[in-house]
Amino acid sequence: MKIPQVLLVEVQHAPGQLAKMLTEIASLELTVEGLEAQSRTQDKTIWELTLEIDPGQEAAVEAAVERSGIARVVGTSDRAFSRHIGGKIDVRSTVQFDDLKTLRDVYTPGVARVCLAIQRDPSLAEKYTAIKRTVGIVTNGTAILGLGDIGPVAGMPVMEGKSALFQEFGAVSAVPILTTHKRAEDIVSLVKGIAPTFGAIQLEDIAAPECFEIENRLRECLDIPVLHDDQHGTAVVVLAALLRGETIAGFDLRASKIGQVGLGAAGMGIARLLLRYGVPEVLGADLSDDAMTRFEAFGGVRSTLRGVMQNAEIIIATTGAPGLIKPEMIREGQTIFALSNPEPEIEPTLALEQGARFAADGKNINNVLAFPGLFRGALDAGASEFNDDMLFAAARAIAEAAATGGETGLIPSPLCRRTHAMVAAYVKESALAT
Amino acid sequence: MKIPQVLLVEVQHAPGQLAKMLTEIASLELTVEGLEAQSRTQDKTIWELTLEIDPGQEAAVEAAVERSGIARVVGTSDRAFSRHIGGKIDVRSTVQFDDLKTLRDVYTPGVARVCLAIQRDPSLAEKYTAIKRTVGIVTNGTAILGLGDIGPVAGMPVMEGKSALFQEFGAVSAVPILTTHKRAEDIVSLVKGIAPTFGAIQLEDIAAPECFEIENRLRECLDIPVLHDDQHGTAVVVLAALLRGETIAGFDLRASKIGQVGLGAAGMGIARLLLRYGVPEVLGADLSDDAMTRFEAFGGVRSTLRGVMQNAEIIIATTGAPGLIKPEMIREGQTIFALSNPEPEIEPTLALEQGARFAADGKNINNVLAFPGLFRGALDAGASEFNDDMLFAAARAIAEAAATGGETGLIPSPLCRRTHAMVAAYVKESALAT
Repeated sequence: MKIPQVLLVEVQHAPGQLAKMLTEIASLELTVEGLEAQSRTQDKTIWELTLEIDPGQEAAVEAAVERSGIARVVGTSDRAFSRHIGGKIDVRSTVQFDDLKTLRDVYTPGVARVCLAIQRDPSLAEKYTAIKRTVGIVTNGTAILGLGDIGPVAGMPVMEGKSALFQEFGAVSAVPILTTHKRAEDIVSLVKGIAPTFGAIQLEDIAAPECFEIENRLRECLDIPVLHDDQHGTAVVVLAALLRGETIAGFDLRASKIGQVGLGAAGMGIARLLLRYGVPEVLGADLSDDAMTRFEAFGGVRSTLRGVMQNAEIIIATTGAPGLIKPEMIREGQTIFALSNPEPEIEPTLALEQGARFAADGKNINNVLAFPGLFRGALDAGASEFNDDMLFAAARAIAEAAATGGETGLIPSPLCRRTHAMVAAYVKESALAT
Repeated sequence: MKIPQVLLVEVQHAPGQLAKMLTEIASLELTVEGLEAQSRTQDKTIWELTLEIDPGQEAAVEAAVERSGIARVVGTSDRAFSRHIGGKIDVRSTVQFDDLKTLRDVYTPGVARVCLAIQRDPSLAEKYTAIKRTVGIVTNGTAILGLGDIGPVAGMPVMEGKSALFQEFGAVSAVPILTTHKRAEDIVSLVKGIAPTFGAIQLEDIAAPECFEIENRLRECLDIPVLHDDQHGTAVVVLAALLRGETIAGFDLRASKIGQVGLGAAGMGIARLLLRYGVPEVLGADLSDDAMTRFEAFGGVRSTLRGVMQNAEIIIATTGAPGLIKPEMIREGQTIFALSNPEPEIEPTLALEQGARFAADGKNINNVLAFPGLFRGALDAGASEFNDDMLFAAARAIAEAAATGGETGLIPSPLCRRTHAMVAAYVKESALAT
């Protein structure tokens, strides 16, 4: 699989030289993902060039740059790495310990009165502790991004990223919990064991099929909201994009035939949410017969890649297989969401060239749009679970944000705080109404 | 048991009136724990009066104040409560999400490179995640302060207080983990299950005898430092006070006979550490025969309350039984640490009146002096466990801080950052040397 690399490329500072270097890059069939001037001397510029390359392809890239005759690779940028030094989250005190009086109020002996008050009336924990604004992000590292089972510790940077985004866009304290357990049984028992710590649980990057059983069983036995983000977070953003598509293109989701290619956690979550929303028919294709059986169990229609491409108007692919959808499979007017990261099943530009009405990839359909507001809203409402109405509400909020923000695309920017606030407000309202 | 209450008392603002009111308070045999002017009108002052009273004793206090004729209780202060609103900790992002480039560096896709680097070389997790500066504070709420088994949620304010102090004085991210498990077996398995999340584990307010088995088994099976604070944190501060006593009073711990009254978690931890330090004989008394057997197993000498008081020069009481030590039991020149909170086995002033050389209670011998530096030092050293040398080093640091700070007492202020930094440095040095 391809990994983004940022190369430092020194190029002569004169007309045409940058183009010359990029032409050599193009000869490797690589697309420029990012390009930014980092520093300049009198006659040379050092560019940060971001490419998505295969492991081991570095030498070929360096050679191509050299061939241009006017540029050379002088290093790789460790920008992503340097931003990770020391980790990305911190547990902070909201109290200033200026004097002994403060210490005696928030620690012994004053804290004892607060403890006893909560013992007498457990509902006071919501007021006097951080529990109800704290989310546990639980992973065993078996399905980290598109990287597969790399283990929970190697997955920690993703969990810390989630936690940072939770606080930034949802004012939620999110605590990563890493476990090496793999069996559904063990993870359920572990999460039950620590559940009093949290106001809600986000299951994260846990592989299918265990993720389904884990989520279902935790939803049954816990009285706090539980959400497997890979299933439902992405599903919410896909639904949001389709709702926005309804407005822009005038199609009607409740009269559409949708095809789901790939029925892992994300694919299954998307198919399920669309059926619940009222899409009359969702065709599905997956290599695993178990997955197909699960898909049929909640109303999906068994099909094949070819069948899906021929019969559905809206295609959603979550396979982890880059380039799986060939240009010739695309039919005029289709909507194509090719969501595998970092490389989609088909490049959106290519799909559009083949006549697709809309095309998007996983860089745009990003679940960071959904999860901070989903949890903020659920916590604000004191919800005991996430129900489908809350997921629909989140999707509606994102679609409306895309419209009112003056955005022309299907999806708003993930950095817009107003969008996250809208998601939280809609989810809260929905939770209180249901 | 007595609980600190802060009453708002309105007193006429004229000479002698405050004394008159306090005389009535004294008639209830209550000691003034705190007194501070809160607001003043032309002829009246409202005082925040802190008393430690029994639940239900409020009416008697109000009546006493009324009897003074010049004062009345106008309310109770909710200062401790108001400082707890919303909880005392927060998980924060150390990243500013100003632009999409940042998002792409610290979340997808950039984060993938960091994940893969850690997968290839797990030691990089120390550099690129928060794991090695994060401590899990695990409790089941079975022995919260002196309050007993009030459950983990009611104990959360204590855990948040610990976490706040960890960050404030040790720059450690500490995450409370609450569980309703009670069996040692279940807690061990739970902590093992989430151990990859943390650089160290602090067990907190878990009742004896389960706490001993839990700590021992976790120390065996985990390769990160594990410390039950109730046992060893208090022990470190007691040892520090005794080391300081050696300097001030010239006694020699390694030639002293020490008596331990009460062999719960704290008492057992103190007795164990003192024996390891080289105290030749520790007499012990406890109502539980199981506790006495455990005590003898690591070298303690079985005795009784009376035997301890008659034969030991240094008495340390951790019984939870206020007033257990009667004034007539005190012998000339003894050192008396009566550590039960919030009410000691004997008031230090009373012990001194009876001829004790030193006397202290649990308000001074406070484990907040030890734990932030202990964990900071262990994490800085990359230690895989806490050994006795590290505990001795922490005690030495605290004793030296008391001396160099120009303090005249046995124990330095818990708010002094220099003390915590010294503890961390000594512990780190000791860990690296052993």
